[in-house]
Amino acid sequence: MRRKDREIADPTEIAKIMSDAQVGRIGLSMNEQPYVVPVNFAFDRERIYFHCADIGMKLDFLRTNPRVCFEVDENLGTVPGPAPWLFGTAYRSVIAFGIARILTDPDEKAMATKLITTKYAGEQMADMITPRLTEKYRSSLGSRLVVVEIKVDSITGKHREISPTLQDRQAPMVITETG
Amino acid sequence: MRRKDREIADPTEIAKIMSDAQVGRIGLSMNEQPYVVPVNFAFDRERIYFHCADIGMKLDFLRTNPRVCFEVDENLGTVPGPAPWLFGTAYRSVIAFGIARILTDPDEKAMATKLITTKYAGEQMADMITPRLTEKYRSSLGSRLVVVEIKVDSITGKHREISPTLQDRQAPMVITETG
Repeated sequence: MRRKDREIADPTEIAKIMSDAQVGRIGLSMNEQPYVVPVNFAFDRERIYFHCADIGMKLDFLRTNPRVCFEVDENLGTVPGPAPWLFGTAYRSVIAFGIARILTDPDEKAMATKLITTKYAGEQMADMITPRLTEKYRSSLGSRLVVVEIKVDSITGKHREISPTLQDRQAPMVITETG
Repeated sequence: MRRKDREIADPTEIAKIMSDAQVGRIGLSMNEQPYVVPVNFAFDRERIYFHCADIGMKLDFLRTNPRVCFEVDENLGTVPGPAPWLFGTAYRSVIAFGIARILTDPDEKAMATKLITTKYAGEQMADMITPRLTEKYRSSLGSRLVVVEIKVDSITGKHREISPTLQDRQAPMVITETG
């Protein structure tokens, strides 16, 4: 990270941003073609889980190259200034790198699906998930449920809060008009 | 796109989602390692512009491989249902593929910087941008301003609105309990 002054050093804070985020974006690469796709997901310590249909571009990429990047961000708004180069954006973001694995064990699939369901639909709904259900599931288009685990190798957080820090005040961006 | 029923076919609607979005995510790839990073940006028909410092991971990737993916999304919330497999997420998203180019012409750099400034800081601030300023600019950390253009080769939009469509009502997701 170039801007060390913007790093979120606390792993608990990084975990909170990951857990609060409703949408994450998976970065994939196949034959040097990058692809970014938004997903709902659950985060559990060093693992990210999402599900998808059993066919589609995500899986074509993942099956060719399991190396992934995962991104979440919170846009906190524009921080105005007296000149364009003094404007900024307040945000929090987390970027993780890891290896994706398509889960095949029914118990693992059910566990991951429970985590995702708990996050978006609540515990009562999650209690309905069983290994058998995750195996038997077919979407309206007939596709099976694929559950993917990303084992996180590295994770970093970055932020700029709405109130400028003392450091930002002391060192505003400047235009060098001479030279 | 697998789910043709969720495609946004109208280019005007896609352009509006791109223009309204405050944050976009660039997908990059270097030696099959994917990288996703959020940016502020401006969209002008077939081109996306963003700026960054003259050093950093984004540029390392871009200089090695100019092929990029660009993603924006709007999370419209969870659509509840009577069972976990009937829950869904309402969203709008746009995914573009293109080729990135670091702008070197001062007039082009100023034009792109004006577009970005107009979007986030307003026209009055954008009027202050000149080719000379974009050349002379140094951040508080001493970095120069790099402006990147992404020439979009393909762009697609996808959505699921909060009110279920008739199609969704007629064909809910089902669990096949037999077989």
